[in-house]
Amino acid sequence: MTQPLFERLTVIGLGLIGSSLARRAMQDGSIAREVVAYDASPTVRTRVAELGIVHRVADTGQEAVQDADCVVLCVPVGAMAPSAAAIIPYMRTGAILTDVGSTKQSVIREIQPFLRPDLHFVPAHPIAGTEYSGPDAGFSTLFEGRWTLITPIEGGDPEPVAKVAALWQLCGAMTREMDAAHHDRALAIVSHLPHLLAFTICGTADDLEGESRNEVLQFAASGFRDFTRIAASDPTMWRDVFLNNREALLEMLARFTEDAQAMARAIRWGDEEFIVDRIERGRRIRRSLIEIKQA
Amino acid sequence: MTQPLFERLTVIGLGLIGSSLARRAMQDGSIAREVVAYDASPTVRTRVAELGIVHRVADTGQEAVQDADCVVLCVPVGAMAPSAAAIIPYMRTGAILTDVGSTKQSVIREIQPFLRPDLHFVPAHPIAGTEYSGPDAGFSTLFEGRWTLITPIEGGDPEPVAKVAALWQLCGAMTREMDAAHHDRALAIVSHLPHLLAFTICGTADDLEGESRNEVLQFAASGFRDFTRIAASDPTMWRDVFLNNREALLEMLARFTEDAQAMARAIRWGDEEFIVDRIERGRRIRRSLIEIKQA
Repeated sequence: MTQPLFERLTVIGLGLIGSSLARRAMQDGSIAREVVAYDASPTVRTRVAELGIVHRVADTGQEAVQDADCVVLCVPVGAMAPSAAAIIPYMRTGAILTDVGSTKQSVIREIQPFLRPDLHFVPAHPIAGTEYSGPDAGFSTLFEGRWTLITPIEGGDPEPVAKVAALWQLCGAMTREMDAAHHDRALAIVSHLPHLLAFTICGTADDLEGESRNEVLQFAASGFRDFTRIAASDPTMWRDVFLNNREALLEMLARFTEDAQAMARAIRWGDEEFIVDRIERGRRIRRSLIEIKQA
Repeated sequence: MTQPLFERLTVIGLGLIGSSLARRAMQDGSIAREVVAYDASPTVRTRVAELGIVHRVADTGQEAVQDADCVVLCVPVGAMAPSAAAIIPYMRTGAILTDVGSTKQSVIREIQPFLRPDLHFVPAHPIAGTEYSGPDAGFSTLFEGRWTLITPIEGGDPEPVAKVAALWQLCGAMTREMDAAHHDRALAIVSHLPHLLAFTICGTADDLEGESRNEVLQFAASGFRDFTRIAASDPTMWRDVFLNNREALLEMLARFTEDAQAMARAIRWGDEEFIVDRIERGRRIRRSLIEIKQA
């Protein structure tokens, strides 16, 4: 067998993403010789030990990161800074600290004050997920064929960046480097805004009076249910994402709202050409997705 | 074998819905002894004949409805009135005229002037569909386990209403009667608004500058693609739906926009409680859908 990428990989936070990464790392020795886990929740720690998806569950963050050559923070974006602050003093010189947060500027801004010059911080974001959460929801193939975006910090070494890219490639992901601000803007439109709209329409439906509200559920097959799958996602994670990418998200929402108002106006005044043009765009985008196999 | 529900069933408009109904009716003799089709498009007529999904394709609407005891209008909502006007004079006394339009008040309002006292008009709406359209897209099981809503006109006979309900039940649908205005309001939130939002977000994404636009496609797995499936639907059908249910749709869009603005405000000011409450609603609604097996 070839040498593993890391000797000891530590996963902090064993939700959907963390537990999927752990499962993949345990499949063969290509990623790490030893996989160690820590989660702030004792319930999750117990469950992870029961599931047997890591070599060892540590009782503290300090113990978990000791002698690890790579530590992956898989906690909600809002918990990144305290989690990082708690473990960084105990990491070994030369180790890599990376994360999986869905917003990158805020994570970098909040972790940077705690960094040590002898560690390598490589911010990353595997774009993968399901509507389920928790250590039971993970599976080893979650990242296959999906993108992982890496947003290297200024002045960082290229080698740790290459190692983090290799980690996700071993998970089956395609990787790409980009600027953190660019990442946040792209994700605001492809992910954060769709989730905001999905949560919102569920709320709008939920506010309807009795009978109409029941009908929303019964007749959901006609379009509504497509919006509810992503609306089932984890509340803490999404609260943090919205709050930590607020500028880009609010800008995309403002653009969307203008466009929705333009559509409303076209409907009110019977502007058929405008309406058909908008619908045609939707079809074109769907076709493009099918062509590049992301549909 | 038992007696078929109808002697001759005529389907006008062989798109996704019409061709699915025809296919189902041809499967056994329970719905009709003879299935006749007519479509305004010669290309569709030729294709339907090739597909062999009806007993006979008529060259004119007049010929198609002759001696039919049930005629089903499966054309876009905006084409209902001219289609009805063209065939009503040739329908046989006592026959049933029904439709599958997604908006009911407008269809009733527009067909009523052409009705004859010796015919029975029963407005209906099978809530089923896919993102595909045209005679090749149909399949006989499309209506199974789905609702068909029937919105009887005032002063109509109960017997033809029962027969139309039986027609859709034979297709595997569950049926319910309701008032046309109530129907239009319910569909505005469960179907028309989700489609409007889906078309709109595709447009918003399409307006982004070069690089960002490509990224929307590449990273679509993170939420965006869930919105694009329904955005691939037929433009003529949806243009007509939007224009023919404008009051209810604009009201639902206004409510939705208020809710989206409230969410934007909560994000801007960091109102965590409000954000989590909205997300929790989404999860609850998703769970309810799973419980009633409509997810």
